[in-house]
Amino acid sequence: MLREWRLNLKLNLKRRPGGAPVYVQIAHGLVAEIRRGRLIAGEVLPGSREMAEELGVNRKTVVVAYDELIAQGWLTSRGTKGTFVSAKLPEPKARPARLALDGPRSRGEGPQFSRLAPPMDVPVLFPRPGLLSLDDGTPDTRLFPAESFARAYRSAMTIAGKVGKLGYGDPRGSPNLRGAISRMLNVDRGLATTPDRVCLTRGSQMAIYLVSRIMIRNGDGVVVDDLTYPPAREAFRAAGANILRVHVDDDGTDMDSLEKTCRRHRVRLVYLTPHHHFPTTVLLNPDRRLRLLGLASQFGFTIVEDDYDHEFHFQHQPLLPLASFDPSVLYIGSMSKLLSPSLRLGYISAPEKFIERAAQEICLIDRQGDPVTEDAVAELVESGEVRRHANRVLKIYAARREKLAVMLRAELDDAVDFRLPDGGLAFWLTFATSSHLDRLEQNAPKNGLQFLPSGSFAGKEDGRRGIRVGFAGLDDAGIRDAVRRMKAAIGP
Amino acid sequence: MLREWRLNLKLNLKRRPGGAPVYVQIAHGLVAEIRRGRLIAGEVLPGSREMAEELGVNRKTVVVAYDELIAQGWLTSRGTKGTFVSAKLPEPKARPARLALDGPRSRGEGPQFSRLAPPMDVPVLFPRPGLLSLDDGTPDTRLFPAESFARAYRSAMTIAGKVGKLGYGDPRGSPNLRGAISRMLNVDRGLATTPDRVCLTRGSQMAIYLVSRIMIRNGDGVVVDDLTYPPAREAFRAAGANILRVHVDDDGTDMDSLEKTCRRHRVRLVYLTPHHHFPTTVLLNPDRRLRLLGLASQFGFTIVEDDYDHEFHFQHQPLLPLASFDPSVLYIGSMSKLLSPSLRLGYISAPEKFIERAAQEICLIDRQGDPVTEDAVAELVESGEVRRHANRVLKIYAARREKLAVMLRAELDDAVDFRLPDGGLAFWLTFATSSHLDRLEQNAPKNGLQFLPSGSFAGKEDGRRGIRVGFAGLDDAGIRDAVRRMKAAIGP
Repeated sequence: MLREWRLNLKLNLKRRPGGAPVYVQIAHGLVAEIRRGRLIAGEVLPGSREMAEELGVNRKTVVVAYDELIAQGWLTSRGTKGTFVSAKLPEPKARPARLALDGPRSRGEGPQFSRLAPPMDVPVLFPRPGLLSLDDGTPDTRLFPAESFARAYRSAMTIAGKVGKLGYGDPRGSPNLRGAISRMLNVDRGLATTPDRVCLTRGSQMAIYLVSRIMIRNGDGVVVDDLTYPPAREAFRAAGANILRVHVDDDGTDMDSLEKTCRRHRVRLVYLTPHHHFPTTVLLNPDRRLRLLGLASQFGFTIVEDDYDHEFHFQHQPLLPLASFDPSVLYIGSMSKLLSPSLRLGYISAPEKFIERAAQEICLIDRQGDPVTEDAVAELVESGEVRRHANRVLKIYAARREKLAVMLRAELDDAVDFRLPDGGLAFWLTFATSSHLDRLEQNAPKNGLQFLPSGSFAGKEDGRRGIRVGFAGLDDAGIRDAVRRMKAAIGP
Repeated sequence: MLREWRLNLKLNLKRRPGGAPVYVQIAHGLVAEIRRGRLIAGEVLPGSREMAEELGVNRKTVVVAYDELIAQGWLTSRGTKGTFVSAKLPEPKARPARLALDGPRSRGEGPQFSRLAPPMDVPVLFPRPGLLSLDDGTPDTRLFPAESFARAYRSAMTIAGKVGKLGYGDPRGSPNLRGAISRMLNVDRGLATTPDRVCLTRGSQMAIYLVSRIMIRNGDGVVVDDLTYPPAREAFRAAGANILRVHVDDDGTDMDSLEKTCRRHRVRLVYLTPHHHFPTTVLLNPDRRLRLLGLASQFGFTIVEDDYDHEFHFQHQPLLPLASFDPSVLYIGSMSKLLSPSLRLGYISAPEKFIERAAQEICLIDRQGDPVTEDAVAELVESGEVRRHANRVLKIYAARREKLAVMLRAELDDAVDFRLPDGGLAFWLTFATSSHLDRLEQNAPKNGLQFLPSGSFAGKEDGRRGIRVGFAGLDDAGIRDAVRRMKAAIGP
């Protein structure tokens, strides 16, 4: 009669016909039997011919399995004497539950993984089948000039291949794109930057992350608005910042509130979205802009200006960034709204000392970005294609902004409060009563709607709540559909 | 006679003809005069017509400049009474040295930037004009199937555009590529992973970085080899790890040394490159593999297996990873060596709990990767193109490996010691005497050579030194050239 382990091996092999290659299955099966203590140290194994017949496989498969286990230390070969189970095995009790052979259901989660830090509060939204997403202000990627981009990509790849630029390069990013972006910032946004003061990042989020790693030491005060961009706040928190909140109202960040905070705490960074405040869309007013620069000077904090959707302003020409008037401002921008989030292209313009440290930090995080994508975008910036694209979509987005306003007024006038945003790609909705909002959130899933939780912008229990509704990604029908689903969720 | 500030404004405008748009120059010029205290709070400005004539610009340009400064708070308009300097200015001493107008030479480095953390020791190499790079084992990107990839990229972009996948998606990465990689790992490398246990990263470096962020708390013991991959060691160090070094010899990491370390310290992670040790290229031997699994079980540490160039093995079929025999191993792989570093595609296969935390961490770091690149690579993996490419280049690299060995023996036999590597894309060179190595390093630049500093692998003063020489990226002529330059640098 066959020993138990041989029977097991045979049965397991038959049970998993669609799994790993047969030699791997045999190897894993033998290890499982060794680990369970049914095959013991020093035991001789059947010859490969006998084993092959027994398992109904090619003899060579058994030889490969034995060889693999010899190379891995589980078996040893003593020449003509045969193949033996290794004399020095790990303790037989060794984590049987973690065996690869037990298959996908066993997740192999050792005790190490139970002490992982608790989950963070970084809400993210992405399309899920059957759900209409009210995004927080992303562009309509159907309008993305995919043809031109694919052409530019192909040409950048050909060139890069020829000049050996498909390997590792400058951690700050492609010189072409750093040049193109620094020119764009100087000409369109009044900065006085240079390619050496620009660092490319994987989306604006990575620029925020770099700021958090480079500028913050444990316990440093970082000011954010009481309604703000959650991934920025959480990145600062994760870096050990003491998060200080200041009030934001219809004129942007309240400077009295900021000054009071500066008098009470050592403030290292002030993170703002002065152009189109996230999430409320308001513009930081003139007096406050000036006062902010004064406070920065007086209290020695650094301003982080996140200008994530600079281009999309509907009332007048976009305002020059604060960084145009003070080059110590850490200025963050993105191609995500202008072109597409999928390109993962953001940037930071900052003093050279910061950029040098950023390059080192990037070497630890991800080494560099994709030079082909970067060069392709540089080509579209330099050729004027990006600017033409911006002009084209601005008109489309302006119409969608109108449409959403009209629909909200027509369908949800009693429940919803909003201000037509001067710029940016989203509305900020507040609600007549908290029960309106509660009903909307509760009933959203069954009405096929998803959006960021209303409490995530304040990020604390008693904070202000609201919903951010991006309009750029929705066409007329989409806007109608979204508003009607909201209405249905809120109910009578 | 014109007031001093008007004269200044005029002169500065003339001096910078190629700079920012004229309205921005006027606005910046006015702010500079205000900051220097030559234009004072409450002062009335000349009318736009007068100003335009004086500066020799279009009147509209002055109007736009005034409007911008009104929106920024520096000026106020009192209707028909004219335009005035704001009554509430920041302190006039406010950082005059940081003015944007002072141009690129002034780097705007406020005092904040002098307290940045000191630079880290992360040596990186990238091509510089006129220098031949001895890389640390990167593929020949001239062999990269750029045509196929550009086609796959274009098609992935078209599909993604149609199904709305150019926006934000799953932080773990494209489901297509996670599926393709998990199948590849199961079929080719004997893992038992699933798409939900795979997370895509921007190169293997980001996988290492994620491990450092998720697994390490301040002071945790992390074991690395005494010769190791510097960016990994530095990422662990930056996360607050207590770096513990164990000896590596011709059979890989010494397990007696590891066991001793485990008895003395609480070890949380052990980072290894068991397949082709970095930098020494050796394979971890069978007894040690088995013992490592036993020690992990006994002391409760987690194994981080960095299998950065799994495919390239010249002696026999690549060995199955440790992760094939223990699913609690954090298994890191990369497309950088297999396809091209420029794609920035790595991955980690790990228990689901780890992957869930990784997704949250990614939301803070860079939100996600590029779904089009990811889908294009998935297409090349699934179509078999990647496998065919690997087979094709393996033959080429095998010949280059031979060539480098022959050249080193012929030209540098007295100075250099090496072992023909069984796998991987680089040689590890040690030197007959330290003065040979010193001369090589000293004279490399003037012989047009660059390589990673010989001390960087040990990363401490009295550590072992050597040079890693990648052969895959050099053709016959390149190999001859490299060895001759090395010989010239070492001298007689």
